[in-house]
Amino acid sequence: MSLTQIYLDHAAATPMDERVIHAMRPFFDDVFFNPSSPYAPAVAVRREYEQAKSRLAATFGAKADELVMTAGATESINLAFHGVNGHVVTSAIEHHAVLAAAEQCEHTLVAPTDKGIVSADTVAAALRPDTELVSIQLANNEIGTIQPLRDIAMVIENERHRRADAGETTPLLFHSDASQGFGQLDVSVARLGIDMLTLNSGKMYGPKQVGLLWLKAGTHRDPLIVGGGQERGLRSGTENVAGVIGFAKAAELAHKHHKAEAKRLAKLRDTMQQRLQHAFPDMVVSGHTKKRLAGSLHIAFPGLDGERLVFRLEAKGVLLATGSACAANKGSRSHVLEAIGLAPDVADGSLRITMGKLTDSADIESATNLIIEEVMAEFERIGRA
Amino acid sequence: MSLTQIYLDHAAATPMDERVIHAMRPFFDDVFFNPSSPYAPAVAVRREYEQAKSRLAATFGAKADELVMTAGATESINLAFHGVNGHVVTSAIEHHAVLAAAEQCEHTLVAPTDKGIVSADTVAAALRPDTELVSIQLANNEIGTIQPLRDIAMVIENERHRRADAGETTPLLFHSDASQGFGQLDVSVARLGIDMLTLNSGKMYGPKQVGLLWLKAGTHRDPLIVGGGQERGLRSGTENVAGVIGFAKAAELAHKHHKAEAKRLAKLRDTMQQRLQHAFPDMVVSGHTKKRLAGSLHIAFPGLDGERLVFRLEAKGVLLATGSACAANKGSRSHVLEAIGLAPDVADGSLRITMGKLTDSADIESATNLIIEEVMAEFERIGRA
Repeated sequence: MSLTQIYLDHAAATPMDERVIHAMRPFFDDVFFNPSSPYAPAVAVRREYEQAKSRLAATFGAKADELVMTAGATESINLAFHGVNGHVVTSAIEHHAVLAAAEQCEHTLVAPTDKGIVSADTVAAALRPDTELVSIQLANNEIGTIQPLRDIAMVIENERHRRADAGETTPLLFHSDASQGFGQLDVSVARLGIDMLTLNSGKMYGPKQVGLLWLKAGTHRDPLIVGGGQERGLRSGTENVAGVIGFAKAAELAHKHHKAEAKRLAKLRDTMQQRLQHAFPDMVVSGHTKKRLAGSLHIAFPGLDGERLVFRLEAKGVLLATGSACAANKGSRSHVLEAIGLAPDVADGSLRITMGKLTDSADIESATNLIIEEVMAEFERIGRA
Repeated sequence: MSLTQIYLDHAAATPMDERVIHAMRPFFDDVFFNPSSPYAPAVAVRREYEQAKSRLAATFGAKADELVMTAGATESINLAFHGVNGHVVTSAIEHHAVLAAAEQCEHTLVAPTDKGIVSADTVAAALRPDTELVSIQLANNEIGTIQPLRDIAMVIENERHRRADAGETTPLLFHSDASQGFGQLDVSVARLGIDMLTLNSGKMYGPKQVGLLWLKAGTHRDPLIVGGGQERGLRSGTENVAGVIGFAKAAELAHKHHKAEAKRLAKLRDTMQQRLQHAFPDMVVSGHTKKRLAGSLHIAFPGLDGERLVFRLEAKGVLLATGSACAANKGSRSHVLEAIGLAPDVADGSLRITMGKLTDSADIESATNLIIEEVMAEFERIGRA
């Protein structure tokens, strides 16, 4: 990061780690062969590709042949939903990709608590005999709330038992979009009790437009993209060898350091939160204070204009977001903040701060000072100093 | 290329041009921002992305807002076919992606001539009142035949007039998969008379898993992947900024040099073809001798085993293919060679040679010598010296 910029928007995009770039580099031109070609150098590329998938799968307790490599989380999510004919249960605070995919089916949107938690009980209440898919994110990209996936998995398991006992044959699968939080949480598919998992390389210091859908052994999906039959027929197209090698490296790094990184970020985040709360006792912190990604801080200054704040802070070199980056260019109010019941004037005065690898304590010290200054200046401007 | 390898499989994969890598490099880590973010450095990334799309579109006479950026040709083709409810006409020698997409619709496969040409007359004969889509490739990836797209476009235009006169409202669109040949042919969408065009960065020295679907202004497709609404709602997912910047650079280079490159490659190809024909008068050259990509040479030695030849040549450092790379790992006979009526024993003894940037005259001299030696050795081995 240049000296003049403090980047606090890791949920929107992350820079590629130099070790990721280094791992990918040979596959750009030196070892560029099509993994389907028959000669030895291409067979070696195929092997490298499969080994990268194995390493990637191992970071969340899965196997290479359970992965479908995709061009990012959005495609993975679309694939997870593809071929669902029955009812779908998801939450009102999912990413747009999940909400848009759900809209193609009959669906129920479960409301989160005011802290942004999607409880297992509300999911249980939304299940119907024809529900085929439940999709709940691992962690929210705006307010950072971590969802109780294990509890939800138990609800789903109970429903499966009920169906089996009743002789009902409708299958029920549990998908989780874990695009956010992989580098801060321990993501083990067995422990979480899910059937499908979406991961996004571009949010964990890997290359963009590389993702995966993990399918638990025995879980079937129809391909969304047909052709040459790559990825066991589930996703055709010449393999993105360099991209997958980079994704594997990024996931290994994220997994290896997630505990230390979460601890480090939580400390930075808590420091900033405490100083800001001290300066502005009326500041609203959204999301659950405990069940929250370590690097996430969502704050609101009722009465202020979040967009103005973003631009004022940008002028001072601090880059952060008002709402979800994916929705930012639409000019509409965040569906997440609406779902947790944040009053419009509070939502409109909100900032999303997401810390990550680029963030150090000097950044947090400077950024906190600048936020205090700019928020005070804005309150003064509107005559509420 | 290392000194010991002669790569003659450019239709399967191409290495990234160093200028392409150079153009992409800053977007990996330095300028990594999400183009949907509101702050100036992200807005600058958005501008760079849009400018790259403009440059890319200009290489085939189109405009940026007519492009849908995808994760490669296979996805583009699937998108071109998405939402088609009626009948489809395509040829029997299309890429697997087109054939697989066509199989999801009611479709007619038009047979090519024995030279691999898909004539406008056969397309005309296959059209039905409910035909919604015609998809014919620009050039074949196995035998290199260049298809008469302009003539086919006229047939389609006539059918549109007939429908208009008859008061029929079924729309009819013309798509072309131009994954092969972009760096050797002048691809102008207006001149070709098509409505949709698929291009593949990975086959023109750009990054892999980057492609586009060009949609003529006013042409509508339903999105295959839904979510954040990127690419005018037609293809959601955070933009592959580095990939698109690289694709634009690759397309500019390919377009700029296509005439000189085609001339250069045709000379190399003709030299090899003549020497091989002189050495083996019974050698079969498949495809049209004139209407053929400059770098393409598909030859067969009746009675020999093409796979054995590929491995013998590989041992001498010459890398080439038997059939289409995408089908190579399936062990089945090429559908293209079958469609042009090549006898099985001829098809089985065939080699696909595709020259490109890595090919120079020294390579061709060496490779030709090695092919002659190995083919002779194989004929001797089977007792037909």
